[in-house]
Amino acid sequence: MNAFSYRVQSLQPSVIREILKFTADPSVISFAAGNPAPEAFPAEEIARITNEILTKTPVDALQYSVTEGYTPLRNRIKKDLEKKGMFDSNDEDVVITCGAQQAIEVITKEICNEGDVIICEAPTFVGSLNAFRSYNAKLIGVDMDDEGIDIEKLEKTLEKHQRVAFIYLIPNFQNPTGKTMSLERRKQVLALAQKHNVYILEDNPYGDLRYIGEDVPSIKSLDKTGHVLYAGTFSKVLAPGLRVGYLCAPKNVISKAVVCMQVSTVHTSILPQMIAYKFITENNFDEHLEKLRAIYRRKSDLMLNALKMQMPKSISFTEPEGGLFIWGTLPDGDMNYFCKKAVQNKVAVVPGNAFLTDETQPCLSFRLNYSTPTDEQIEKGVAILAQVAKTMYK
Amino acid sequence: MNAFSYRVQSLQPSVIREILKFTADPSVISFAAGNPAPEAFPAEEIARITNEILTKTPVDALQYSVTEGYTPLRNRIKKDLEKKGMFDSNDEDVVITCGAQQAIEVITKEICNEGDVIICEAPTFVGSLNAFRSYNAKLIGVDMDDEGIDIEKLEKTLEKHQRVAFIYLIPNFQNPTGKTMSLERRKQVLALAQKHNVYILEDNPYGDLRYIGEDVPSIKSLDKTGHVLYAGTFSKVLAPGLRVGYLCAPKNVISKAVVCMQVSTVHTSILPQMIAYKFITENNFDEHLEKLRAIYRRKSDLMLNALKMQMPKSISFTEPEGGLFIWGTLPDGDMNYFCKKAVQNKVAVVPGNAFLTDETQPCLSFRLNYSTPTDEQIEKGVAILAQVAKTMYK
Repeated sequence: MNAFSYRVQSLQPSVIREILKFTADPSVISFAAGNPAPEAFPAEEIARITNEILTKTPVDALQYSVTEGYTPLRNRIKKDLEKKGMFDSNDEDVVITCGAQQAIEVITKEICNEGDVIICEAPTFVGSLNAFRSYNAKLIGVDMDDEGIDIEKLEKTLEKHQRVAFIYLIPNFQNPTGKTMSLERRKQVLALAQKHNVYILEDNPYGDLRYIGEDVPSIKSLDKTGHVLYAGTFSKVLAPGLRVGYLCAPKNVISKAVVCMQVSTVHTSILPQMIAYKFITENNFDEHLEKLRAIYRRKSDLMLNALKMQMPKSISFTEPEGGLFIWGTLPDGDMNYFCKKAVQNKVAVVPGNAFLTDETQPCLSFRLNYSTPTDEQIEKGVAILAQVAKTMYK
Repeated sequence: MNAFSYRVQSLQPSVIREILKFTADPSVISFAAGNPAPEAFPAEEIARITNEILTKTPVDALQYSVTEGYTPLRNRIKKDLEKKGMFDSNDEDVVITCGAQQAIEVITKEICNEGDVIICEAPTFVGSLNAFRSYNAKLIGVDMDDEGIDIEKLEKTLEKHQRVAFIYLIPNFQNPTGKTMSLERRKQVLALAQKHNVYILEDNPYGDLRYIGEDVPSIKSLDKTGHVLYAGTFSKVLAPGLRVGYLCAPKNVISKAVVCMQVSTVHTSILPQMIAYKFITENNFDEHLEKLRAIYRRKSDLMLNALKMQMPKSISFTEPEGGLFIWGTLPDGDMNYFCKKAVQNKVAVVPGNAFLTDETQPCLSFRLNYSTPTDEQIEKGVAILAQVAKTMYK
């Protein structure tokens, strides 16, 4: 029988999934997930809305629908993007996807030939890396500084490689580092993409979860030349289990993405799309977002303060202005040993090399999540991490 | 900028989708769709169930879930398949997909390299053909007779080609022909697959909708050597908008499929999975299926009788024992002209060449659907088709 195809032969389950197995043990405190806080789900309102949909328009919610997505939701997303200068109805279109992850996978299938280069921030979201790997893309990670991807190294990479499918970026509260790309850097990256005529795939799952400082314009909003493909999602601002995300891109890119979706999911499950639409239109969505930001700010503060108070000073941490993650970096030594000791002491964090294009590269960092654990777990977990760290660092 | 990848460059929207555009005109009677009858949806019960899920266990329905699918639903599917001799827990596993279409797409991604051969019945389901095309598979259609795929031609095809990824089959009430493969033919096909050591992908969306005669054992149930991959779905027996299907296959195939899904949809939307589980366990599912069968038998009878009474005798029609489709064949002439005349007269059918691996091949057939139109539409539509046909045939 046929073996697995070349494209997926070496594809492995995400390292995070492996770590999450430890966290099935209820005595393990998990800082390893990336789940929204369960208390952030507007559960009662979703129950009310859903009941209304299924009693008033059941056939709409149960019958086959169009691949492009639920039209009222698409129109609402277009309107919201337009307000932010991110959508032009003459040139662009929107398709609803099964989470932003599907947007990323479909774009890769659509634009990246086997062996083509995809340039990413190093480190970056492992789910995207694996989507790229699943089409045999050649992954090149470019280092980051505090303002985002290193612009000189990016330029050198673009000069060196001919067949670049796109540059993948998470400019806001990046996963895993929590870093936000500065406006200046965004402009520089866009100028380079335009100069070398390659797409940017801008992934913005956490953009609405800024709890400190001012919003920075998206790269999409700075681009007037059709170089930016944009993935958004309701996973972090409503509920990830619904699996409702979207892709906004030039019309020809969306048309082909729709054909690609027609042959995979046919369309995103329609009831969740209707729930998302009804929630954002019938409720004060801004107020809902404010509530979420308050939750994440409190949890982030709690974890960061505990880390600053208790961890050895030689271990550094990013201070995100939004999102779900903090990135810790050891001064030296063996990061994997530290993570292993932590989980033996019942605290799970994600080893940073999971987020590299080449997992065997040296890495001293690890990812901490503050949205999933309870306040009590954050306090207890950091105390344990500090005990482990103090046996290794000053 | 990168052009579209080679794999999707020539991929076109399904011809059916183009035809369905005509049917946006409410004065056009559509026999072109493949939607379940809206009156077949257990809408009230789904509303009740969903409300219970969202009030009792909202976080389970809204949080990220596992890629493999909702565990109670997976276990129930395994149990049901086991009863039919189609599942062995030692060797096999089940993953929940976003409709059977995703199962088909994921298997193609997983097993078929670009240029590998996929053998199909000619004609076959265009959604699957397009999924195969989207990975640059080499498609080879093998003619059918009344018992299913032609076994001699299949053998010759297997002998001729080395790199065959799998044989794709819809043994029950096939889309588009409505034909059912005989037991003897199933055994022969399986023996050939085992001899040549290639997989069979058995797609069975309509199997539970048999309204005449006795069930024929699935090819999966006849196989004890791990050669059959099986795709099932709740689309035709519950509601397609939910997008809940599944793949049953040897454990190693499922493990890799799970990784492929992790990078595309992450997991199938969890609320629809919970709805499907609760519906099939809390209701008498057999009784529900009996109700559906009665609806489809009545509609099929209505259309077939009208066709027999009114259409020229030289035009032949298959007489399906279940499912959603009838396949008409003209004695000679220009099938596309007939279909065009029909739609000009406000009745849409699907030209048969849409279901061929090479759409430019000659074809005298067309597909009729009886599940979506109302009884009145069936009667009026067939009368119009007959008028058009009588100007061309005796």
